[in-house]
Amino acid sequence: MIGEHSSKQYDHELETIRSKVLLMGGIVETQFLDAMACFRIGNPERADRVIAEDDVVNQLEVSLDDACSHLIVKRQPTANDLRTVMATIKVITDLERIGDEAAKIARTAKSLHGRGTPGLNHFEMVRTISTATSDMLHDALDAFARLDGKVALQLIARDAVIDHEFRSIMRNLITFMMEDPRTISSALDTLWVAKAIERIGDHAKNIAEYVIYVVEGKDIRHTKPSAPVLPDQGAN
Amino acid sequence: MIGEHSSKQYDHELETIRSKVLLMGGIVETQFLDAMACFRIGNPERADRVIAEDDVVNQLEVSLDDACSHLIVKRQPTANDLRTVMATIKVITDLERIGDEAAKIARTAKSLHGRGTPGLNHFEMVRTISTATSDMLHDALDAFARLDGKVALQLIARDAVIDHEFRSIMRNLITFMMEDPRTISSALDTLWVAKAIERIGDHAKNIAEYVIYVVEGKDIRHTKPSAPVLPDQGAN
Repeated sequence: MIGEHSSKQYDHELETIRSKVLLMGGIVETQFLDAMACFRIGNPERADRVIAEDDVVNQLEVSLDDACSHLIVKRQPTANDLRTVMATIKVITDLERIGDEAAKIARTAKSLHGRGTPGLNHFEMVRTISTATSDMLHDALDAFARLDGKVALQLIARDAVIDHEFRSIMRNLITFMMEDPRTISSALDTLWVAKAIERIGDHAKNIAEYVIYVVEGKDIRHTKPSAPVLPDQGAN
Repeated sequence: MIGEHSSKQYDHELETIRSKVLLMGGIVETQFLDAMACFRIGNPERADRVIAEDDVVNQLEVSLDDACSHLIVKRQPTANDLRTVMATIKVITDLERIGDEAAKIARTAKSLHGRGTPGLNHFEMVRTISTATSDMLHDALDAFARLDGKVALQLIARDAVIDHEFRSIMRNLITFMMEDPRTISSALDTLWVAKAIERIGDHAKNIAEYVIYVVEGKDIRHTKPSAPVLPDQGAN
């Protein structure tokens, strides 16, 4: 994988960017888990921390983009290294958006628990999609850390499961709202949270696609999932 | 602005990428306008065309990312040129997402008109946000085409107006749903359309921020809007 560039300093610079991306990934993953905990049990202080953490994530986005630009100028990366830098530039954007969605969930959790939620166990509605998405995000970040194209490829199919679960939540919430219009406001809050989770699933899928781009040198975005992307590839 | 690189061939390559981005921008802008026309008056064939156009946009995304990679390897851009390439890599992602949102609006328009919409003039609910957003998108693409940092800076504030309008639509729709639960389903469709429009506004804002990054060499994402970014700059 490595080997086409010789300088140790260059390796070190690439590795610094990589660890910073992983740090950013770790932060947004925790943000998401914390935001869901707030949605489940309240805890406005924790919600505030999730929201405040967004600044850290935003600053990481800006500084990582800058580091990638500098690396391009200084090292003129080619082949694998350039793909890694290109993928990093894209992954950063997805991570930043995940942070945004987590902050949105935290804000909704705060407002929902602040005014009470009659007649609707809102967390139960999103428990399944929340677990599926946090698992997917974790695995996507792991695939990025280990540059594991096989895991990344398997991940992509899991986004469809999350989208399906989202539609099912929406149907359930519509039923609730129709049966008891007093639940409309909190049902909508729950729907926004479900939507934010579904978006996080989209971003995790994007990250998986960029991992495949780095590993395989192939851009599989917008291709049909049945296309044989990793033919005859052995275990990682 | 230009002048730091000398090769005519290089200029030509940069210009080709630029025109292709503008082509992509023109397509998604039309997609959005067409999708809104479908939402207003129906027309399932036109909605299908908007949805089909998404493939063209997706392919442009892939081929433009590829062209940017090639340019980096071949030309080793620095300073202005590198900023242009970096901004292009990011803008492409935003344009592709705008295409996605337009396709979502077209799908909702189809399903809503397919089953009729009792008691809710759904287009009137989103008329204001739709006009504000399509104007903003048009101006953002124009700012990108002319690399006009001044216009781009003014654009950024307009996103807050769109967000505000979105929240007002949501409150109105909640009132409708509470007064007549039979409208819940179509009100939710309208809400998703409003949300898609609000997202398009976010992407237009991102594009404006990248224009400022190219022109000013400054990354103003996540800074407070009051920060003086273009001090004492004369007319474009």
